[in-house]
Amino acid sequence: MEDPTRQEQAGPAVRARIEESFGRQGLMAHLGARLTHIGTGRVHIVLPARPEVTQQHGYVHAGATSAIADSAGGYAALTLFPEDCEVLTVEYKINLLAPAAGDRVEAVGTVLRSGRTLTVCQLEVYGVRDHGERKLVANGQQTLIRVDGPRR
Amino acid sequence: MEDPTRQEQAGPAVRARIEESFGRQGLMAHLGARLTHIGTGRVHIVLPARPEVTQQHGYVHAGATSAIADSAGGYAALTLFPEDCEVLTVEYKINLLAPAAGDRVEAVGTVLRSGRTLTVCQLEVYGVRDHGERKLVANGQQTLIRVDGPRR
Amino acid sequence: MEDPTRQEQAGPAVRARIEESFGRQGLMAHLGARLTHIGTGRVHIVLPARPEVTQQHGYVHAGATSAIADSAGGYAALTLFPEDCEVLTVEYKINLLAPAAGDRVEAVGTVLRSGRTLTVCQLEVYGVRDHGERKLVANGQQTLIRVDGPRR
Amino acid sequence: MEDPTRQEQAGPAVRARIEESFGRQGLMAHLGARLTHIGTGRVHIVLPARPEVTQQHGYVHAGATSAIADSAGGYAALTLFPEDCEVLTVEYKINLLAPAAGDRVEAVGTVLRSGRTLTVCQLEVYGVRDHGERKLVANGQQTLIRVDGPRR
Repeated sequence: MEDPTRQEQAGPAVRARIEESFGRQGLMAHLGARLTHIGTGRVHIVLPARPEVTQQHGYVHAGATSAIADSAGGYAALTLFPEDCEVLTVEYKINLLAPAAGDRVEAVGTVLRSGRTLTVCQLEVYGVRDHGERKLVANGQQTLIRVDGPRR
Repeated sequence: MEDPTRQEQAGPAVRARIEESFGRQGLMAHLGARLTHIGTGRVHIVLPARPEVTQQHGYVHAGATSAIADSAGGYAALTLFPEDCEVLTVEYKINLLAPAAGDRVEAVGTVLRSGRTLTVCQLEVYGVRDHGERKLVANGQQTLIRVDGPRR
Repeated sequence: MEDPTRQEQAGPAVRARIEESFGRQGLMAHLGARLTHIGTGRVHIVLPARPEVTQQHGYVHAGATSAIADSAGGYAALTLFPEDCEVLTVEYKINLLAPAAGDRVEAVGTVLRSGRTLTVCQLEVYGVRDHGERKLVANGQQTLIRVDGPRR
Repeated sequence: MEDPTRQEQAGPAVRARIEESFGRQGLMAHLGARLTHIGTGRVHIVLPARPEVTQQHGYVHAGATSAIADSAGGYAALTLFPEDCEVLTVEYKINLLAPAAGDRVEAVGTVLRSGRTLTVCQLEVYGVRDHGERKLVANGQQTLIRVDGPRR
């Protein structure tokens, strides 16, 4: 398994833009998710496992897994856009490969193709234990659309 | 738009089973979602809009929308299973058709095909205003697997 | 099951445009598929079962099923576009619900949401027997993009 | 881009089983597709571009692209099954990233997770020119189910 800390970070302006947008996502704060890596075309989001994010068997809920995967892909796309653009998710598909066990789940969004209008991302979610074990628990694919101009 | 209150409810044993399982989903309580209809092969879940479930533009986050859609589909499948069975989401795909605006979002999971091992559900999410306006904001398709025997 | 012949047809200009485009799809002719209904936002394509379109168990191949579903959705989208526009499939997802048995398969593409840039369609494929029995064998969802100007 | 010929092949019994099944797929022969690599958990299928497999702009039709991708994933799954098992596609999702231009398209199906009942594959399709240029034209994800016992 790769070591995310060894990957190159995006520039400070891009990072600041992503962090500011992430800070406005009420859901991410409410779930307890945090941005852990902002690379060019690649963003990581970590969600600690706790009772507030579980399904009925005590694993992280597919909805929480998907939520951080969707955000990771969206921000990965945004790192490649000009400053005034926003991004919206058009659709995504995700396979839940294994119960999302572990001390935390980590979503990795990676841009697969960045076009003028549409971006396609790969979504991966890992269950991670504190001692370092990582297991792929979900894998998906996402389509996003670039929206020009500020959208606040 | 159809009126959910006109639909027939599942029997009391099925409803109790679904409600008990829903009660164990930490994420649903944390988001503020609640079960509003349990029919045979059809379940509705409502999520009131509030800052804790938004994305960066103030609409309900695609992750929250997906979370209740995924649960609605899972419980719709479960209404058709024998008592000792559990259900796991294999995968789903969802299109976000419009910003999830409104006073609440309502997910409707409907069984499209129920097989011995696999179930396929249609997922619909509506943005609903208090005065009654309903708009389809997301549409998806989900595959689930039946797991025999208790899984606690 | 609905009777397609009872549905209203699109106007003659739209129908001519769709038929001309369909006629240029080498694959549709090679498979033996034909357009059987062009409504506004809804197109049907029929593929007779024959050895040239089967998989290893003698049923219609998922690839052939998908091919006519994809075309049906694309042309359904095109019926709602201005004259000079073209349509491209961005992505689709399809569940194969049952073996595609029958004397022919019929794909029905229906526009679910038509936006300025993107269109989302529902895809249904039925296995049909000559004596009239119809069974849903595949169900999907498709995203399309409108491309302005002629693209030949 | 990797060179498929450098990859290790599956054993002769597995290859014979896949080739025999592929030979029974009427659609693959009718399209002109051929198996070009059978590795353990990875299968390649090539489809030469010709008028019989095109869409209305002369590129390879998304349906043909999907058909070989679906078969490549299915056979990749089958390489990991015991001898008497068959495989059925449950569902797949594919993004068409670029027009499928080139002298041929090559689908690569790779097993991402192989479970007792379900297998998840990654699907990639490349447009390839005779002088060696390769471009990713489609990317997808597929769920398959193992069916025990002979199914002829």
